[in-house]
Amino acid sequence: MRIVRSIKKAREAVSRARSRGLKIAFVPTMGYLHEGHLSLVRIARHYADYVVVSIFVNPTQFGPREDLARYPRNMHRDRALLTKAGTDLLFYPTLRAIYPKGYRTYVEVTGLSGVLCGSSRSGHFRGVATIVLKLFNIIKPDLAVFGRKDFQQSVIIRRMVWDLDVAVRIMTGPTVREKSGLAMSSRNDYLTPVLRRDAAIIYQALRCARTGFRKGETADPSALTGMIKKMIGNRGGRVDYVSVVDPDRLAPVKKAKRGDLIAVAAFFGKTRLIDNITL
Amino acid sequence: MRIVRSIKKAREAVSRARSRGLKIAFVPTMGYLHEGHLSLVRIARHYADYVVVSIFVNPTQFGPREDLARYPRNMHRDRALLTKAGTDLLFYPTLRAIYPKGYRTYVEVTGLSGVLCGSSRSGHFRGVATIVLKLFNIIKPDLAVFGRKDFQQSVIIRRMVWDLDVAVRIMTGPTVREKSGLAMSSRNDYLTPVLRRDAAIIYQALRCARTGFRKGETADPSALTGMIKKMIGNRGGRVDYVSVVDPDRLAPVKKAKRGDLIAVAAFFGKTRLIDNITL
Repeated sequence: MRIVRSIKKAREAVSRARSRGLKIAFVPTMGYLHEGHLSLVRIARHYADYVVVSIFVNPTQFGPREDLARYPRNMHRDRALLTKAGTDLLFYPTLRAIYPKGYRTYVEVTGLSGVLCGSSRSGHFRGVATIVLKLFNIIKPDLAVFGRKDFQQSVIIRRMVWDLDVAVRIMTGPTVREKSGLAMSSRNDYLTPVLRRDAAIIYQALRCARTGFRKGETADPSALTGMIKKMIGNRGGRVDYVSVVDPDRLAPVKKAKRGDLIAVAAFFGKTRLIDNITL
Repeated sequence: MRIVRSIKKAREAVSRARSRGLKIAFVPTMGYLHEGHLSLVRIARHYADYVVVSIFVNPTQFGPREDLARYPRNMHRDRALLTKAGTDLLFYPTLRAIYPKGYRTYVEVTGLSGVLCGSSRSGHFRGVATIVLKLFNIIKPDLAVFGRKDFQQSVIIRRMVWDLDVAVRIMTGPTVREKSGLAMSSRNDYLTPVLRRDAAIIYQALRCARTGFRKGETADPSALTGMIKKMIGNRGGRVDYVSVVDPDRLAPVKKAKRGDLIAVAAFFGKTRLIDNITL
């Protein structure tokens, strides 16, 4: 695996791969990799010939009171994991390469960025859309792979790519879970062993709601979300939001139907975790 | 000259040219072409092997009370002019091809979009940045040529391209003027013959201010702009703004120096005209 830090070198490396006729896949990450990220790298490997991964903890997607400074990092381990998973190029840019002095351009996907996670994390998806577009422009991949846990992110990126005519195919990989059912996340490492065990209730509650829906017990969104809130609350979690939404427009539905999404964000301790399930 | 209306066909045509090793230049326009546009096409011709021009009256850069509906069009004449100027491909997309149903993504160059023309035309440069990025993503040119009359536009596009790592070289072509000195603009056709004659005062006033500066009479921005306001006012024009700014950041300067820009927008009748001069 080759590691480059400058935009110029990243471009040159990818350009050489392309001139050899290789298909390029790209997995953007913020590092501190877990099995979820690695599963995306393997999907990239499967669909393409040359796999680029980026590690960049993007400041523009963190709010002023969020965890940018203490976001976990472990470059040594990440490097070993990526090599083993079959990465060809790791792009690990400096902050100044990505956001030079006087930086001022942002991409906004209106209407999808202010709901769900966007309502409690103002500006978050503007930062996400901006960095992803920049990385696409640098790497120019044929396809890019995102994790399904960050469902809203993938919807916004698909929309951005479609709207701005970016020539890249967006794929999503399934959420990888710990044995307890807790969705894998770099932020899980913030949790004490007790909170980590308790946080498994998030996915249990989502499954419980889905089972209720499938059995025909209820299609009322507020009944479904009420059940989830109660289960998470009983285990000491604090729900930030839980909503039954249309999976394309992320708009709340009046009556739940097959294919709709239940999305949830909840705090365990000070750690905010997200998850989702398709009905 | 080939004319295409769909994004797919535009991409295919450019892609064929590129695979023949040709260098691609691009001139985006809103049509109703004049000598100013054609001079940009000739610059494109000079620096590249394959010249693409787009004609698209972009609704997102017009304000609600602006002249979108009555913006002048003359496709028949435009086609003849472009053929003569040496255009290879005319991309003339439909509104729905560019802004499909549910369109929601916008590019904002913060800090440069709210000053000068941006302060009286809210949202204008968001629309400009968005359409130009879309067109760049469709055409993927090696270089693109913009007119110097729209100075703020070219500054914003340079910044966007730099910030978002778009691989295109931005060039600007000099302002082409009518015999009277009036900067050529599609909007000049809104003017009665009398107003058209009067509007020539804009450039006369700019030159007068520059002469005053060069002779060392004054470097005080308010003296320079005061002179311009007076001259335009005396000829029946209504100044929207006139400002001495730094040509990169478009910020007003405290003391004018060589290389600074005087930018002006003024109404003659209901028609808003812009122009600028470098000190």
